[in-house]
Formats: sequence, C-alpha cells, structure tokens
Amino acid sequence: MRVGPSQEEIRRSNLGALLRSVHLQGAMSRADLTASLGLNRSTIGALTADLAAAGLVSEGVPREQRGRAGRPSLVVRPESEKVYVYAFAVEVDRIVAARVGLGGVLLDRFEAARPRGEHDAATVVAPIADFIRKVHATASTVAGARLIGSGAAVSAMVRRDDGFVRLGPQLGWVDQPLGEALAALIGDARPVAVRNNADLAALAEHTRGAAVGCDNVVYLYGDAGVGGGIIAAGRPVTGHGGYGGEVGHMVVNPTGKPCSCGSHGCWETEIGEHALLAAAGRNPTAGRDGILAVVDAASRGDNTAQAAMRQVGDWLGFGVANLVNIFNPEMVIFGGTLREVYLASAAQVRSRLNRNGLPACREHVRLRTPQLGQDAALIGAAELAFEPLFADPLDHG
Amino acid sequence: MRVGPSQEEIRRSNLGALLRSVHLQGAMSRADLTASLGLNRSTIGALTADLAAAGLVSEGVPREQRGRAGRPSLVVRPESEKVYVYAFAVEVDRIVAARVGLGGVLLDRFEAARPRGEHDAATVVAPIADFIRKVHATASTVAGARLIGSGAAVSAMVRRDDGFVRLGPQLGWVDQPLGEALAALIGDARPVAVRNNADLAALAEHTRGAAVGCDNVVYLYGDAGVGGGIIAAGRPVTGHGGYGGEVGHMVVNPTGKPCSCGSHGCWETEIGEHALLAAAGRNPTAGRDGILAVVDAASRGDNTAQAAMRQVGDWLGFGVANLVNIFNPEMVIFGGTLREVYLASAAQVRSRLNRNGLPACREHVRLRTPQLGQDAALIGAAELAFEPLFADPLDHG
Repeated sequence: MRVGPSQEEIRRSNLGALLRSVHLQGAMSRADLTASLGLNRSTIGALTADLAAAGLVSEGVPREQRGRAGRPSLVVRPESEKVYVYAFAVEVDRIVAARVGLGGVLLDRFEAARPRGEHDAATVVAPIADFIRKVHATASTVAGARLIGSGAAVSAMVRRDDGFVRLGPQLGWVDQPLGEALAALIGDARPVAVRNNADLAALAEHTRGAAVGCDNVVYLYGDAGVGGGIIAAGRPVTGHGGYGGEVGHMVVNPTGKPCSCGSHGCWETEIGEHALLAAAGRNPTAGRDGILAVVDAASRGDNTAQAAMRQVGDWLGFGVANLVNIFNPEMVIFGGTLREVYLASAAQVRSRLNRNGLPACREHVRLRTPQLGQDAALIGAAELAFEPLFADPLDHG
Repeated sequence: MRVGPSQEEIRRSNLGALLRSVHLQGAMSRADLTASLGLNRSTIGALTADLAAAGLVSEGVPREQRGRAGRPSLVVRPESEKVYVYAFAVEVDRIVAARVGLGGVLLDRFEAARPRGEHDAATVVAPIADFIRKVHATASTVAGARLIGSGAAVSAMVRRDDGFVRLGPQLGWVDQPLGEALAALIGDARPVAVRNNADLAALAEHTRGAAVGCDNVVYLYGDAGVGGGIIAAGRPVTGHGGYGGEVGHMVVNPTGKPCSCGSHGCWETEIGEHALLAAAGRNPTAGRDGILAVVDAASRGDNTAQAAMRQVGDWLGFGVANLVNIFNPEMVIFGGTLREVYLASAAQVRSRLNRNGLPACREHVRLRTPQLGQDAALIGAAELAFEPLFADPLDHG
C-alpha cells in the first residue's frame, strides 16, 4: 500500500535527486540544478550545503572560468576522489576490477585473464586481491575517502538476494558463492551486489549510454552464450528471483542442436559464437577473434563466410522479432560479439524482423550498437553499487 | 528526475491510498486503515472526512453490528452507488458493457452477441447505446451520482494514447477508432481508456484475483487467437506504444503453419483454438464449444482427442518455458479457452516446462487458472477507469 512520505523522506529524496544529477551529468551550476530538479534556489542551496558537509559534493569555480574576470558562477561537483565504489566483472575470458568515483569516474582499474579451466569462485577472483590492497593504500591517503559499496557483473544466473551464482555454463559454474568470495576479498562487511552481466550492461546503456531516455529497451549480449537485459517502463525486468532475461534460452528451433542448458534449439545455439564459427567451417571455440575473422572474410567476399553471416543474421532477426512482439521496445542494442554479427548482417536482421514482427510492435524500434564498449557491465556494476547512496545520501552507512 | 513531493502531493497520495484500500478491500474500520496505511489515527480521521465531504466514502455502523448493544466501531465504506465507471469488453463473440461502482461493485450489466461479419467499431458498439441511456436515467435519480471515467478491453492491438485499434485479426479490424466510438456513445468529453483484453485481464487478476501479491505474472488468454498480459516488478509491461505482450506471435515453429498476422509458426498457430480443433479432426471454427467437446472426448478415452490434447499441451508448455526463461515469473495464469486446454494437458505442459525451462527460472513458478472467470478483462477495464481517481481523489474532473 503506497502512502505519502514524511518531510524527512522528502528531504532524503531531494538530496538523492540532487546527488544523482551531479553523478550523471557532472559539475552543475545551482541554476542548472534549480531548473532540472524543479526546486527553488534556496532549497538547492540548503541541499547542497548538506551534501557538502557530508563530503559528497564540493562547490567551486568551473574549470573554464578560472582566471577570468568577473564574478564566476559556482558549480556543484561530485567528490569523485573521495566517494567511490568497487566494481567487478567476471567474464568468460577475463576478470576486471575497478574503483569508480562518484560521477562515474574511473579511478583505478585492473584486468587479468580468467584462469582457464573450471575453478571455484574464490580461486577465480583471487588475482584481484593485490589490486584491492593497493587501492586501499591509495585511498587511505585521501582525507575523508570512503567506500560506498560494491557491485559485480558475471555472465551467469545470479540469485539477487545474496549474489550466489546458480548456473554459469560458460564459466563452468554451478552454485558458486561469488558475492561472498568478493566480499571476503574486500574485507567490507556489506554484501556485494551481484547481477547478470547483460542486466548490468543494459542498466549502464540506459543510464549513461545508447538508451538514455528510452524506457523500453532490449539489450542483447553475445559471447559463447547469449544473454539479455530488459528495461520495461524504465525499470529492469529481472523476475521473481533475479533470473529473468535469459533470452538466449528461448527455444527458436524445436529441431535444433543441443544446448549447454540441456534443452535443444535455444536461440544461443543458432546465434552464439559457436554457431557462427561452425557455419563458417571454422574452429567453433575460436571466440571473439574467430568471429572477427569470419566478419572480415565475409566483407572480403568469402562465400562460406557470407553464407554463415546470412544464416546467423536471419536467426538473430528471428529472435529479435519474438522479443519485439513481446516487449514493443523503442530500442534493441546488440552487445558483445553480437555487435559485430549485427553490423555484418543488418540487412538479414531487419528483413526477418519485418517478416516476423507485428507492424505496430516494430514500427518505432531502433536497432543500435552499444555506446559504452567492453566495460558496459562493469559500469553497470558501479551504478548498482552507488544506488543505495542515492536512496539515502546522508545516512548511508 | 525524481524529486520529493510537496505537502499537497503527500495529502493527495494519502487520500488516494485510503480510497484505494476501501475500493479493494471494502468497508474498513479506522483501526484497520491506521494499521494498513501506517498513518496515525488523526490523519486517517482527517483524510476520511475529506473523502466523505467529496462524496467518495461514507462512515457507518458495520452491517454485522447493527442492533447490537455497546458502542459500535464505525467503518469507512466506498460510495459504490454514487461513484462509478463504465467498463466495456469487445470480444470475438460478444460485447459486454457494465456500470461498476467504487469498490468493484457491479451495478448494471449488458451483454450481446457481437454482430457477425466485419463491421466498423461504431456499428459493433451501437447495441450498447440503449443500455447507456437506461443507466444514465437510473444514475440521475441518485443524488450526487457521478461518472469517474470509462475503460474498455478489446481483443486487439490498441494504441495506448487514444484507444485506436491498430489490428484485431479475430475481429476483422484494421485501424478502427474504438475509443472514439465508445466516447461518442457515452457522451462524456473524457477519452475512454482502451487496452488489450489480455493486458486488462492480467491487471484484474493481479488486483483482485489469482495473482494478488505476485509481482511477476504471465497471464495467457486464448480464444481464436492467443494474447498475453505481463506484470513485471508489480507493473504492467505494455511497451513503447502499448502493443507489448503479443506472446501469441512469438514464433515457436519455424516450419509451422501460416498465421493470420502474416508470419509462420506463431505460438497461436500451435495452441490456438483452430490448432486443437484441427488436430482433433474437428471443424476448426467450432470455437469454445468445440474445445469443450474435444476436452470431454479426451476425458472419455477418445484416442484422437487425447493425442490432440497431448500435442497442443506440449506446444503450450513449450511457449510457457520460453516466457519463464524471459520473465522468471512467480505465476503463469491460463485464461480463456487456454484454461480448459491447460487443465486437460497439465502433465504435458509441466513436462515440457521442465525440459525447456532453466531450473532457476522455473523453480518457484506456479501454474494457475484465473479466479475471475469470463469477466476478468471487463473488471480490468473498470480498474483502469478508476485509476485517475486514486491519483487525485478530490480534484478528479
């Protein structure tokens, strides 16, 4: 039952809105904040003072006005060096760790190849330990520096409540306590928020990338598997336990090939990296480099590669049409190696979408590539970790 | 940008919450309201007085306490006779109109067969005109009676903004101004809120039926076609233009039969009424009665009917598994003739769901039949029409 908030809740909500504004847009003048938040100037002043006293923002002369004559207009800036989160990405072939400051500023970054073979979560994340130690040491030299929380992206199905990985076929993981392993490494009592990488890449593109301002978005991510992150009416569709968006396991071909999930003819058996590489007569485990080689061969006129691209492009459009009929999105984004596949087979994708998609569902849909590149899921993990701060900027523990 | 509300907005929100409570739960004591809304007793008293002054609720002795000794505890009741909406349902074989009072009380109801053949929207709704005239006359005898608004459900794809039907293959409609036709009939200057019938049946089951308290729900509705209404994180998934949820046009069989939408192998070509009737060797246009006859024959041991049920049940489970992987719902509800099909083939549905559905996505999902029966979409249309009242109970136009 929704009930109106108290005065204290209003103040908290206003503080959060102001802080989120400078987090997303960077330094803003009080006049900009007044206009964008719809609050009066004195309220903005009071909120800014509260946030500054808490060490979350600072006020100062904008860089471009320094040294000029006349009275400068002050801007409110996020305290990016002092207020930070840890963000992690555990992917099929690499692990990434980063310290990200308020405002989305990348402060420190570490990347390593994921150890080959099947290892447990603690072993996989162990190489991050050194990075964390160094960053702790760096941060402790900055007065007032504070860790807000941590977020992690993983190409797996994750229990939302505790970051427990239920199933990550591409990682060889079943029931791995990733959230716990990362928390132990950081030495922070607070849980690490862990989500599926496609869900977080979708969140990142929606917050800072290609889908800013779009309320209905289907984000597709391809590597060895195919995942999805859905935004509907401006909010992530994650389902009851956090396992929603598994579009790669929508069965599109009942007479199709066996899938790693145990089913047959899942979309990822037709559009995943293995499918394209096999159709092109290449080593099906050649990964991203293999995909780029097929795309390159097709562009140079190789018949086998072109036929493979057309076939996979048709299946890509086939699943996109299903999702367009279900979600009526404004935008579909092709991430991971699906970006390359889409760019090389856009005609097939669009043609199949036009044949299978209902006109009303597809008429305004834009097909796009990501703006945030390989680190989209990492950026999404950082955004996730900052969220509790915006919910309650002053009392956030 | 979300910003905290003003005092006036808080009051409005509290008034809406109180009014919605008695709308959904019927007469409630002030003590119940205090507990359920988390507001103090004096606030509840003030809000109730405001709503009573506006003619939206009344206070009185509960029925069961009348005539008893001792001081009775007063209850707050919705003014169901005075505050009402019109709700309409345009279905394949019938049209229904109703006057529904605050609290969800059915005050008047009219039903007629939909005229056979292809007629425009104005012609199809014309038989409702007499009903509206009579209801206007009845309502005008009640002091303070007021029409809040109108909602309509239609088995078609509807443009959310103006209730324009883009495509209703089962009705033979392309580009029909249903919202406009109904508004002209009512003589109300306000637009009629029109939505897809499966979307509204989902809303009704979520608000008053099988899915109360479930935040992630897939509702399936079958007649000649197959539609879907999705609730994710407690809110309807309707997409950019209002056309989302067209799960009947998810292609499940690439080598399947042509569909009325122009594509091939859509889910509705495998699980719609025509598919079951054809598989059972019967007249494929026999409709609901035909479906019941096949179900009955199967239960009596008819081999052909049993084989048809198994085949359609398997396809039903096939599509359900896809949707479970995409939405990770708590509940899937089978409405329309899919209720009968599900009940007669639950073993096939569950077996296919277990084979194609990811364990994490399906582990908590309950498969259910509707609680609200044939009028679910009509009830949803009434709920839709009441919504603006809860957004602003005192200033609602």
